[in-house]
Amino acid sequence: MRAESPSSPAAAAGAPATLSPVVAGLVQDILAGAGPRQRRAMAKAITLLESTRNDHRVQADALLTELLPRTGASFRLGISGVPGVGKSTFIETLGLSLIEQGHRVAVLAIDPSSSVSGGSILGDKTRMERLSMDERAYIRPSPSSGTLGGVAEKTREAMLVCEAAGFDVVIVETVGVGQSETAVAGMTDMYCLLQLPNAGDDLQAIKKGVMELADLVMINKADLDDAAATRAQAQITSSLRLYGMHRRTAPEVAAAAWQPRVMRLSALKGQGLAEFWSAVTEFRTVQDRNGGLAHKRRQQARTWMWERIQAGLQQQFMSAPAVRQVMDETLAQVLEGRLAASTAARRLLARFSGDNTDA
Amino acid sequence: MRAESPSSPAAAAGAPATLSPVVAGLVQDILAGAGPRQRRAMAKAITLLESTRNDHRVQADALLTELLPRTGASFRLGISGVPGVGKSTFIETLGLSLIEQGHRVAVLAIDPSSSVSGGSILGDKTRMERLSMDERAYIRPSPSSGTLGGVAEKTREAMLVCEAAGFDVVIVETVGVGQSETAVAGMTDMYCLLQLPNAGDDLQAIKKGVMELADLVMINKADLDDAAATRAQAQITSSLRLYGMHRRTAPEVAAAAWQPRVMRLSALKGQGLAEFWSAVTEFRTVQDRNGGLAHKRRQQARTWMWERIQAGLQQQFMSAPAVRQVMDETLAQVLEGRLAASTAARRLLARFSGDNTDA
Repeated sequence: MRAESPSSPAAAAGAPATLSPVVAGLVQDILAGAGPRQRRAMAKAITLLESTRNDHRVQADALLTELLPRTGASFRLGISGVPGVGKSTFIETLGLSLIEQGHRVAVLAIDPSSSVSGGSILGDKTRMERLSMDERAYIRPSPSSGTLGGVAEKTREAMLVCEAAGFDVVIVETVGVGQSETAVAGMTDMYCLLQLPNAGDDLQAIKKGVMELADLVMINKADLDDAAATRAQAQITSSLRLYGMHRRTAPEVAAAAWQPRVMRLSALKGQGLAEFWSAVTEFRTVQDRNGGLAHKRRQQARTWMWERIQAGLQQQFMSAPAVRQVMDETLAQVLEGRLAASTAARRLLARFSGDNTDA
Repeated sequence: MRAESPSSPAAAAGAPATLSPVVAGLVQDILAGAGPRQRRAMAKAITLLESTRNDHRVQADALLTELLPRTGASFRLGISGVPGVGKSTFIETLGLSLIEQGHRVAVLAIDPSSSVSGGSILGDKTRMERLSMDERAYIRPSPSSGTLGGVAEKTREAMLVCEAAGFDVVIVETVGVGQSETAVAGMTDMYCLLQLPNAGDDLQAIKKGVMELADLVMINKADLDDAAATRAQAQITSSLRLYGMHRRTAPEVAAAAWQPRVMRLSALKGQGLAEFWSAVTEFRTVQDRNGGLAHKRRQQARTWMWERIQAGLQQQFMSAPAVRQVMDETLAQVLEGRLAASTAARRLLARFSGDNTDA
């Protein structure tokens, strides 16, 4: 890893890397415009990004750097909700309506369970059948290996490929499991949560941390039980008001900050979709005007970089022979109360830096 | 740092380090029992722990390792609340009552503002005047430099010194600012939050994340406005019930888990203190019996070790010349959208490991 690392000062300072013919071809096809050739290049590019081989990673970084100036023009929409809430139906109906209006829609997914099951929430080919057959849409299942951080990174990168290819709405979907909602909210412009009408009756179904992230909550299947939907709307609105007080907002944005809303819809019947998209458009307009969107994206990029650095440092640390050699024994001593945790940390850190010096 | 690091395999495997005469003397005096000699040794030991000099740190680690087998027998009580809620009065009244019952009480503090102001919430000598003059109590102001993580680490270590010296109740106090409440909850057995009676009227005054941590909420100054205190108690009880559903509890502890409570008291008049201590005792008994306390402490030690490792890795990373050389430029490129965050992270990480190899 050390020998092949693309870490010359020139590369780090942003000088253009020499593109391999393969990467140059992919870039050309992705930027060339809609068509079967573009779709194939997108699929190949994303597969390259998902590869764990070091030589692929070098190519993938060169590809990303080439595409980057052409990214950022889409609206990035995060959607999550528990299984059964109707995410697929909602996204398909929304997507079909958007492409009719002239948009190009990409749908990506983060499925934290895919690395365990080998499956994926979007792997099922029968899902979103109509949308997936339309060439104005691009659907890509969740990367299926690695930690949540790793899976999220691949999805972020895939999002950049879709943007460079001219998709102007990118939907990132996740199931309400683990911390994947935080990851999705951390890479999108607007984060929307789908809820069932009975959510208000069962507060346990609402994961508090997730509710806090939501810019918009949609009560789906609202037509099935009008009374329940009304109760849910009232209860969620009141929670959002409570949580909203604690939302962190950049000072310069606070003045015109968006107030999270609760809407009702029926994805199956197509009811409420126009109102949903109009709220999204309003959100985007407000955030565009006050600079909130640009600010949020810069913050996300910074956070993303630090997350990856931390993950990488931890990996270097855990794989350093001098650390591995004593890790189990040291942790055991800490848990048995024979070594202070801070002393243990200092010893391991000293071994880590020492190991790197000796190697 | 590399040359002096105490990272020989023997040390990491827990073999006793050779104690310097100074450290050996401190250990002897701390373990010798209550008295002026012990107090002086405690003060010197904690000052040694707080030192940033590398040679002091080596001695401090040796000291901690010596004391560790004599620690852990105290009950660790975290107390926080906003300025003006009456923390000092509460802790002094509680402390005086506990020493009358035969306890020895140590009071430590984490003041995240002390590194900025140079002051400390416990630095004011007129605070807790009666308690501080009693030799059965030991009061130490907040460490006054470094990051919150660093300040918290010193306080954790000072707690171990107090325990080794035979103090059987250690109170860690923090003002409701920043993330210090999380730090205190992460190093104590039970975390208590002091609230004003009007807190129920002003939900904004209740920091949600903090409320979630609380094992017990005490409405202080309840005598001043009985109606407000009653409202606050009802409102906070209902919030705790909501948050309680989301509390993470180890499976083996869940069955007999503690239900957070809300109590009323008047620290100034000494009302409700007996009930408070009886709730603390009940908490401790329940958690002792079901193994929750031991489990919590092991978790805390593990988390503490990883926190310190992460902080240390970040420090090594940020101070590596090869990283420093390109960091500003790289971050600027990321923020301007010229370099993908993940690509930037990989380049910097490669420079970091490469730098350590070359050094």
